Amino acid sequence: MNFTTGAPVSELLSLDHIRNQLIRLEDTIIFLLIERAQFAHNEKIYKPGAFRPELEFDGSWLQWFLFEIESFHAKARRYTSPDEHPFTPLNLLPKPIIAPQSYPSLLHRPAATHPSVNVNSRILDFYMNKISPGICAPGDDGNYGSAATRDVEVLQALSRRIHFGMFVSESKFLDAPHDFIPHILSTPPNTQALADLITKPAVEAKLLVRLANKARVYGGEMDADGRVVESSDRKGKIDMEQVVSMYRDYVIPLTKDVEVDYLLHRLDGVSQEQVELWMKGR
Amino acid sequence: MNFTTGAPVSELLSLDHIRNQLIRLEDTIIFLLIERAQFAHNEKIYKPGAFRPELEFDGSWLQWFLFEIESFHAKARRYTSPDEHPFTPLNLLPKPIIAPQSYPSLLHRPAATHPSVNVNSRILDFYMNKISPGICAPGDDGNYGSAATRDVEVLQALSRRIHFGMFVSESKFLDAPHDFIPHILSTPPNTQALADLITKPAVEAKLLVRLANKARVYGGEMDADGRVVESSDRKGKIDMEQVVSMYRDYVIPLTKDVEVDYLLHRLDGVSQEQVELWMKGR
Repeated sequence: MNFTTGAPVSELLSLDHIRNQLIRLEDTIIFLLIERAQFAHNEKIYKPGAFRPELEFDGSWLQWFLFEIESFHAKARRYTSPDEHPFTPLNLLPKPIIAPQSYPSLLHRPAATHPSVNVNSRILDFYMNKISPGICAPGDDGNYGSAATRDVEVLQALSRRIHFGMFVSESKFLDAPHDFIPHILSTPPNTQALADLITKPAVEAKLLVRLANKARVYGGEMDADGRVVESSDRKGKIDMEQVVSMYRDYVIPLTKDVEVDYLLHRLDGVSQEQVELWMKGR
Repeated sequence: MNFTTGAPVSELLSLDHIRNQLIRLEDTIIFLLIERAQFAHNEKIYKPGAFRPELEFDGSWLQWFLFEIESFHAKARRYTSPDEHPFTPLNLLPKPIIAPQSYPSLLHRPAATHPSVNVNSRILDFYMNKISPGICAPGDDGNYGSAATRDVEVLQALSRRIHFGMFVSESKFLDAPHDFIPHILSTPPNTQALADLITKPAVEAKLLVRLANKARVYGGEMDADGRVVESSDRKGKIDMEQVVSMYRDYVIPLTKDVEVDYLLHRLDGVSQEQVELWMKGR
């Protein structure tokens, strides 16, 4: 999301605007996966302690990369942006050296009661255990730095994509708060009803088709004249099915979890008066 | 170049292998340019001292990014690989924390007489002054971290592409040393004749066509169903002509400079006996 265009909040939170951002992120994610797939799986980089004693870091090679890159990006104020979430706990990262940008207040985030949803540990988990072994050649080619650099880039893009669910939820909530409020306030909250309200099976089906097409085009080989070679007997740069199943099995469900979790806290700190006003708007 | 596949040197230095690497790098470079073009030019990040006093660094915001990222990558042994050249002077970077990989000795590099060719300052120059303003929207969107992160990635890929010229030269030299030797040994050396020997106008013309096709495909918009929309009335994600002219005006000529410079030093420290043997092989 480009928060700094000076566009009004209503436009930034329009579903059209958010969808365009999510569609654009698909390109980024597919391309980064293709870049990662140039290197072997290199399982060693995911094993805590595998580079001891040379690497004096309490975690895996990849976690060291995340820590170092995120430490630097934190200095450059990356994590002051509402759509960025580090994998390293924020309290371990340095403070920004320049003042944060002023962002419009797009999300409902009462400080004490609602810590920002952060599903990065789950993202790291499915990426390491399913995606990386699925898209890379098995084995160890020694390119630990190249592999981990790409891993960090993929993880950052996936994290941004999945946490964007908060903007989706806020947009849908504001569009019809009276639909959501009863399910948020029931005891216990009706998470299934909330999930149903934000699920659009037709949109998801379309996304998976689009994704397969993008993976085929970006991952296809081009002949010497730059024509895409799509014939099935030539192996592309990435296994298209891996990209589609990653979205279907992990990205979409995790985004939904982020969306529902956001909604469950949407009324924290909201006045009874405001809630009644919303319910009357039905 | 994947130096760690265990392939024999003759295969790594085959022109086919090198060309495949260069063609693959085109995809990376185009995609990274597309990613950069999401953000405004942000000229401020290229101006030394523009972030003083917050940034205590003797250079621009981008140079600070290069220094920080390269310092980290140096620890992860990036610059022990023969196809990697940092923008920050090597003596300012930390030592690798793990042992370098063992690479086959592909290049002729007598330590004292032939420091590795490094044209990174010229790459930084054309990138900042021509490419970044050419592909990005003018103005300042405040996304200094995002912009500089993409700049670093583009610069690293361009540097790798251009310094690959050394492998091209070595391959062509070994294929017919007797063609090169007289021009290297003449006083002064005949750089024009050397340049002519390595220039293949038909290959260059093909490259530019392929590049335009790739930029059109990767930079095109996809409709909701994932079909590439190539009609001329829709603006793509990047100006195709900028990509083509960057290669034509900067990447190809700079690569040629790297190639010729490498050849000029190809006989440094080589015995008279070996030179005569090569000349007899004519």
